[in-house]
Amino acid sequence: MNANEIPYKTYLSENEVPTAWYNLRADMPVKPAPLLNPGTGKPVTAEELGHVFCDALVAQELDNDTRFIPIPAEVCDFYRMFRPSPLIRAYFLERALGTPAHIYYKFEGNNTSGSHKLNSAAAQAYYAKEQGLKGVTTETGAGQWGTALSMACAFFHLDCKVFMVKCSYEQKPFRREVMRTYGADVTPSPSMTTEVGRKMNADHPGTTGSLGCAISEAVEAAVTREGYRYVLGSVLNQVLLHQSIIGLEKHAALAKLGVKPDVIIGCAGGGSNLGGLIAPFMGEKLRGENDYRIIAVEPASCPSFTRGRYAYDFCDTGRVCPLAKMYTLGHDFIPSANHAGGLRYHGMSPVLSELYDEGMMEARSVEQTSVFAAAQQFARTEGILPAPESSHAIRVAIDEALRCKEEGKAENIVFGLTGTGYFDLVAYKNFNDGSMMDYIPTDAELEANFAKMPKVG
Amino acid sequence: MNANEIPYKTYLSENEVPTAWYNLRADMPVKPAPLLNPGTGKPVTAEELGHVFCDALVAQELDNDTRFIPIPAEVCDFYRMFRPSPLIRAYFLERALGTPAHIYYKFEGNNTSGSHKLNSAAAQAYYAKEQGLKGVTTETGAGQWGTALSMACAFFHLDCKVFMVKCSYEQKPFRREVMRTYGADVTPSPSMTTEVGRKMNADHPGTTGSLGCAISEAVEAAVTREGYRYVLGSVLNQVLLHQSIIGLEKHAALAKLGVKPDVIIGCAGGGSNLGGLIAPFMGEKLRGENDYRIIAVEPASCPSFTRGRYAYDFCDTGRVCPLAKMYTLGHDFIPSANHAGGLRYHGMSPVLSELYDEGMMEARSVEQTSVFAAAQQFARTEGILPAPESSHAIRVAIDEALRCKEEGKAENIVFGLTGTGYFDLVAYKNFNDGSMMDYIPTDAELEANFAKMPKVG
Repeated sequence: MNANEIPYKTYLSENEVPTAWYNLRADMPVKPAPLLNPGTGKPVTAEELGHVFCDALVAQELDNDTRFIPIPAEVCDFYRMFRPSPLIRAYFLERALGTPAHIYYKFEGNNTSGSHKLNSAAAQAYYAKEQGLKGVTTETGAGQWGTALSMACAFFHLDCKVFMVKCSYEQKPFRREVMRTYGADVTPSPSMTTEVGRKMNADHPGTTGSLGCAISEAVEAAVTREGYRYVLGSVLNQVLLHQSIIGLEKHAALAKLGVKPDVIIGCAGGGSNLGGLIAPFMGEKLRGENDYRIIAVEPASCPSFTRGRYAYDFCDTGRVCPLAKMYTLGHDFIPSANHAGGLRYHGMSPVLSELYDEGMMEARSVEQTSVFAAAQQFARTEGILPAPESSHAIRVAIDEALRCKEEGKAENIVFGLTGTGYFDLVAYKNFNDGSMMDYIPTDAELEANFAKMPKVG
Repeated sequence: MNANEIPYKTYLSENEVPTAWYNLRADMPVKPAPLLNPGTGKPVTAEELGHVFCDALVAQELDNDTRFIPIPAEVCDFYRMFRPSPLIRAYFLERALGTPAHIYYKFEGNNTSGSHKLNSAAAQAYYAKEQGLKGVTTETGAGQWGTALSMACAFFHLDCKVFMVKCSYEQKPFRREVMRTYGADVTPSPSMTTEVGRKMNADHPGTTGSLGCAISEAVEAAVTREGYRYVLGSVLNQVLLHQSIIGLEKHAALAKLGVKPDVIIGCAGGGSNLGGLIAPFMGEKLRGENDYRIIAVEPASCPSFTRGRYAYDFCDTGRVCPLAKMYTLGHDFIPSANHAGGLRYHGMSPVLSELYDEGMMEARSVEQTSVFAAAQQFARTEGILPAPESSHAIRVAIDEALRCKEEGKAENIVFGLTGTGYFDLVAYKNFNDGSMMDYIPTDAELEANFAKMPKVG
């Protein structure tokens, strides 16, 4: 393996790192459908969004036209902590599979938050500071987003209030401690500090919370406090914009190596990783300059793309957020508790939903035991212990590499390794013990949730 | 910060990565004292060591003359997974401290084992495989070494039996799961699978174990099994040899940047990190080519260098290993249970002990609350959540940078950041809660342990 032309890891030099985000929407012939005010049924205005989000972020959310948006110098500085991230040639995995395919992955886990979430957290914290705000609020489930935001707020000296779903707060005390070390204030949700939380606790004594409730609490905490705004780590257009840094770096690194990908694979929950990973490649595809197979991978237990509907729905179970047109399983859909990884969101980024609806990408759902088998094989060959979310992409990358083996094709397969699994070891334990179960919702279950969706748009 | 000449991170390219380890002993005018057979009081022979360790590693252990030892191609390949590691300019920390000093750190934590231990685990597993062995045994306390060895054994398809101190096994279930994911067999120690373990369980029912007992179990498991050898992650000459990769990469990166360090700082437990970090610099110092201040940092609760004796002592509390001449607190010394980080070893690498005795380096002990305060400041400014062990070096790097501020000096301070603290969050929680205590052994305590040391050499 010593004489290979392609290095094991490719890092861009610091002056090759992109200095502008790429706004894929500018190249979409059909723009993503606008967010709607659930009260009026009309597109939400910048003014309405400005009560909840920072002004600069509202502008980015609504901007479907500007192709490149400069990354502020302070955010570039912050990115230097953990970017550029490496593009890794998976030589050891290729050897283990005996495949003629060339496998590459873009690794976003080499930072303390453990995932790509930091790319958007850095930007959102910066704009909040820029606007002279005191702090931001957010919710976190598994904790990656909360950790990323805590790190960004520590860097920009901003107060950070995280509502953490109570069952995670109790079961993942270490994630909580990382956030506290970065100075964040972490509250188990439902809490007694918001009206929504107090009502939830009164109506459902002993409840261990849900992401939907935590969102509602975080939004309430932001809008009722002077100098605070709410921030969100996925789904939104602005988040995909910030995450385009992943795809831009990957595009530059592949160009440097003279490699054109045949297949690009990313896991998809709310779409923040996938949207960033594919952005410049999808742009080329939309402009007719290049063609790529693009595959979104989702859990069989939360199959928004593969079994959901493309329609307007609430972004949150608490119905405090605007309506978005997206692939959705219904805002009341909650994946089985035995589903281990993230990617539990009922909906999907409106940008990706529109592109999928136009046939610009494929989607595939995978069951979790096969995902963890792929994770284990990857860990043992490539060394990195992957996050369960990322392992969905690994599963399909391996499957595609095995197809190449059967067909005798030396395709270039590129996937996104969004993060590490250091805080997901309860799930690994279940897999190691052989006690992990798969779960696929029935058609009847899905229909029941579709029936509760709003009749709009 | 954009216009700086020195990049935030410096990675060597893959063809600049060293292909030979540097054996510092070759440049020592006085060689480290030989290991002694505790029965005969005579230097242990290669044959005696060969019952416990792999042949190639025994040769490296006893080789005081060969300056450069080629790294086998398969180990170079494995190193490509996680090496080169970055040399990072701590711009953000410098800014927070307002110091004119330039601070650099070599970061060894960007791999799943979370520390530099993988450098030696890779080598030791390779040589075991080369020799046609079936497997290796070892002990682990906090779990970093066990994780590193599990990863290396998975890569080289070698069986791996880890005896994990029972209290860690129970309190750090996640570390255990990482090892299991890499296919290792993890047994809580004392176990019922060895004579030593059964005796310990019978004599001390309900004991939660000690590192000394786990070493004894691992050695017994190796010597009583056909095709197995025992491996150790610190203290030994061979381990320092493998860890020289850290210092060699750092030396090459600093040379590339045109930076000459004034002060080099590393944490010291058994000496594996420090010995590797300083190797080529100490070599220059010994040869009279260059001068550097070199500072070993140890916990005030386990002060081998600063309060220990330079004498022959047992390497383990179970007295199954040879005697080594080293700075030691006595083989029965156990640091207070409230001491959080690693660096709990009673002795010190014989190589480093000899150099310290000759006045070639300084040593400083620090208390753990001040270590965690430094860790927190580092995390919030530089982003990385450091291991408690590494944070000892951070503490002194910050202190030196503040001295530079007082004296108005722009010195170059370089320290080793050995790993990440993702599995040390119980300690961080104690610090965050304000319940962390310091502990310094009394002179009487130390004297009592000195009195129990063997009268040899």
